[in-house]
Amino acid sequence: MRYDEMSREDLSRELEELRKEYRRMQALELHLDMSRGKPCIEQLDLSMGLMDVLDSSSDLTCDDGTDCRNYGQLTGIDEARELIGDMMENNPNDIIIYGNSSLNVMYDTVSRAYTHGILGNTPWCKLDKVSFLCPVPGYDRHFAITEYFGIGMIPVPMTPTGPDMNMVEKLVAEDESIKGIWCVPKYSNPGGISYSDETVRRFARLKPAAKDFRIFWDNAYGMHHLYDDRQDYLIEILAECKRAGNPDLVYKFASTSKITFPGSGIAALATSPNNMADIRKQLRIQTIGHDKVNQLRHVRFFGDIHGMVEHMRKHADILRPKFEMVEKTMQEELGDLGVGTWTNPLGGYFIGFESLPGCAKEIVARCKKAGVTMTPAGATWPYGKDPKDTSIRIAPTFPTLKDLEAASRLFCLCVRIVSAEKILKEKEA
Amino acid sequence: MRYDEMSREDLSRELEELRKEYRRMQALELHLDMSRGKPCIEQLDLSMGLMDVLDSSSDLTCDDGTDCRNYGQLTGIDEARELIGDMMENNPNDIIIYGNSSLNVMYDTVSRAYTHGILGNTPWCKLDKVSFLCPVPGYDRHFAITEYFGIGMIPVPMTPTGPDMNMVEKLVAEDESIKGIWCVPKYSNPGGISYSDETVRRFARLKPAAKDFRIFWDNAYGMHHLYDDRQDYLIEILAECKRAGNPDLVYKFASTSKITFPGSGIAALATSPNNMADIRKQLRIQTIGHDKVNQLRHVRFFGDIHGMVEHMRKHADILRPKFEMVEKTMQEELGDLGVGTWTNPLGGYFIGFESLPGCAKEIVARCKKAGVTMTPAGATWPYGKDPKDTSIRIAPTFPTLKDLEAASRLFCLCVRIVSAEKILKEKEA
Repeated sequence: MRYDEMSREDLSRELEELRKEYRRMQALELHLDMSRGKPCIEQLDLSMGLMDVLDSSSDLTCDDGTDCRNYGQLTGIDEARELIGDMMENNPNDIIIYGNSSLNVMYDTVSRAYTHGILGNTPWCKLDKVSFLCPVPGYDRHFAITEYFGIGMIPVPMTPTGPDMNMVEKLVAEDESIKGIWCVPKYSNPGGISYSDETVRRFARLKPAAKDFRIFWDNAYGMHHLYDDRQDYLIEILAECKRAGNPDLVYKFASTSKITFPGSGIAALATSPNNMADIRKQLRIQTIGHDKVNQLRHVRFFGDIHGMVEHMRKHADILRPKFEMVEKTMQEELGDLGVGTWTNPLGGYFIGFESLPGCAKEIVARCKKAGVTMTPAGATWPYGKDPKDTSIRIAPTFPTLKDLEAASRLFCLCVRIVSAEKILKEKEA
Repeated sequence: MRYDEMSREDLSRELEELRKEYRRMQALELHLDMSRGKPCIEQLDLSMGLMDVLDSSSDLTCDDGTDCRNYGQLTGIDEARELIGDMMENNPNDIIIYGNSSLNVMYDTVSRAYTHGILGNTPWCKLDKVSFLCPVPGYDRHFAITEYFGIGMIPVPMTPTGPDMNMVEKLVAEDESIKGIWCVPKYSNPGGISYSDETVRRFARLKPAAKDFRIFWDNAYGMHHLYDDRQDYLIEILAECKRAGNPDLVYKFASTSKITFPGSGIAALATSPNNMADIRKQLRIQTIGHDKVNQLRHVRFFGDIHGMVEHMRKHADILRPKFEMVEKTMQEELGDLGVGTWTNPLGGYFIGFESLPGCAKEIVARCKKAGVTMTPAGATWPYGKDPKDTSIRIAPTFPTLKDLEAASRLFCLCVRIVSAEKILKEKEA
């Protein structure tokens, strides 16, 4: 029965029971963490073979004769561009292999636009106003980059098919100060939502007022399916932009951080030849080249894209029960109470939870007091400010299944308590 | 006998002989390269053990419990900060371990000052004029960074003890637009010069007009001695600045690029706690962390600084005969002709050659026509413009000893031809 349909008396009694249960759980002195999108130890163990593929007897020479141990190959070795090309569904020629962090590539991309402009347009540092569209809820580290550069952030609501495209189209067409939009198009952070075909098609057909408007397409979870038989497919954005006559509209980012080792993977950017030429002007000033030995290590470890797909099935086998456990717990504990909604993603690293208005902060605080750390409420909004205070990001990957069960139960309990308190207050007002 | 003391007739005859010899050497169809500061294959082979220190049975956990395979440790693992601290002669707490390229760290340091300013000072992008002092001859990739950011470059002559400090002191004290100076303080690129104690002391005591003036101290060759018994020692600049009451004056850079593998080593920055706090504000926006597995790999490979020193002796054993071969050839071929001067460095990657005025470009062009590639003349000056056209960088590390002998002989021959032509022309004028 929905809490808001319960009588004051019944809801009061319920709340009393919940509080008892909360005290009981507090006494367990839990120390659990559902805050970070980190792979768990079993996932990391899947890639230990990376440490074996190269040894001192290995030939570290590429097919084209490049000695991976020495300087050179600014945009990456051919073998890595091919593998990552298959991973990103892009032509290897449209790919630059970077260092270990796609976040760093995104930072660098914003920074370059800020200092030097895009394709001959005015550097953003010379403009009075620069803004980005920020689909919300979204990824806090994206928003942190734009905030760091003093770029205004305009929230755009997410829908089950992606950002509200009516709003996106209208805003970019009207406002020349809007220079970009942050997108996690597949298994989004935090909702696990994948953009629909229509959304991608409309993105590729945007008519921005700003010539230097770019879509920052962070396809972080392109390979991260939870199921073999149910997978989201995304229209490849570079190709769609090209077909739509908008070839230069997108910077696309990806990495192997959550495929092999976070921090020791390889990151990449895919974009049009025009954008690529623009970026190379900077890249050759910035570095002589990225870590080719690590590129070769990844290529030899996976062999080819099929090897990577098989590897991702092993990740899925570890993660699937965790997602299902959290979803099952929420269904059991919150299913018919009308105290929140959540997503049931088919991949990615997160589940998005929407509480009743004004409850998210309090729920997270209550979790904390009973030993369960959640991502701070508000983190999914620009400046950390969620105006309705409803969005909570659940990260089920890192804890063990056992810990996750305890943490999910506690989370649901906190949702119930805070929601009941709110509804009761409203009934009494 | 000096060419300028020879009679016209004698010099003409000499020139004729030289030209015959040049044609003979052209017929050999050499394809040699003395242009790039790249380690040779034998040097790369020294570090193949790096590929063995970690395998799938290795525990990739740090002493403090950090799993190197996962996210975290923004400024590097403790073990790596200690090793690189010993390498850089700095407190591990004053060190940030970055990715694979110190050039990238330098770019990033200039870029951050440009976009966000240093310690609360106006971002350089908001200033009408920003300048750097550039000791010449110097490193072209340094100059390329400042040029890319539109930063004015003021050449300062190098002397056998470092940059002309009278000029440096005067300029930085007078001109608030001067925000930095590029330094390669030990076994400099290209001259192989090490700054004297007095030079370092005077650097630490600079009184710049600009509060955000910084010394960009690229100690790329700190470990790169050619001899066991004859080594240059440098006063450690951070400590000296602290003693002089100027603790925030320096950003110091280093990497293992020429110790293990270029492109697959680790780079680092050392600086004061104030500067460090300033940089961390950016770093935590820019990345979640650099490649910790590679940091651990380096730590396990070297063990400690003594292991690194022993490793560098092996590099020296390979490089010493190469430097000595070039120097011996120049001594034999050019010794008493008065057609140029060169350095005999005790370490580093380069030998600096100064031709007669107006001859460097022509010498390099002549080498090229006979199959020997040199660093482009002028590259050692800002904007690639060497006003007197005298500076040539010789890079003896990459070719085999045999190739190097042929290349040096040809180089000397070209120096003699171009110099004789010039002197003869002057005699005829």
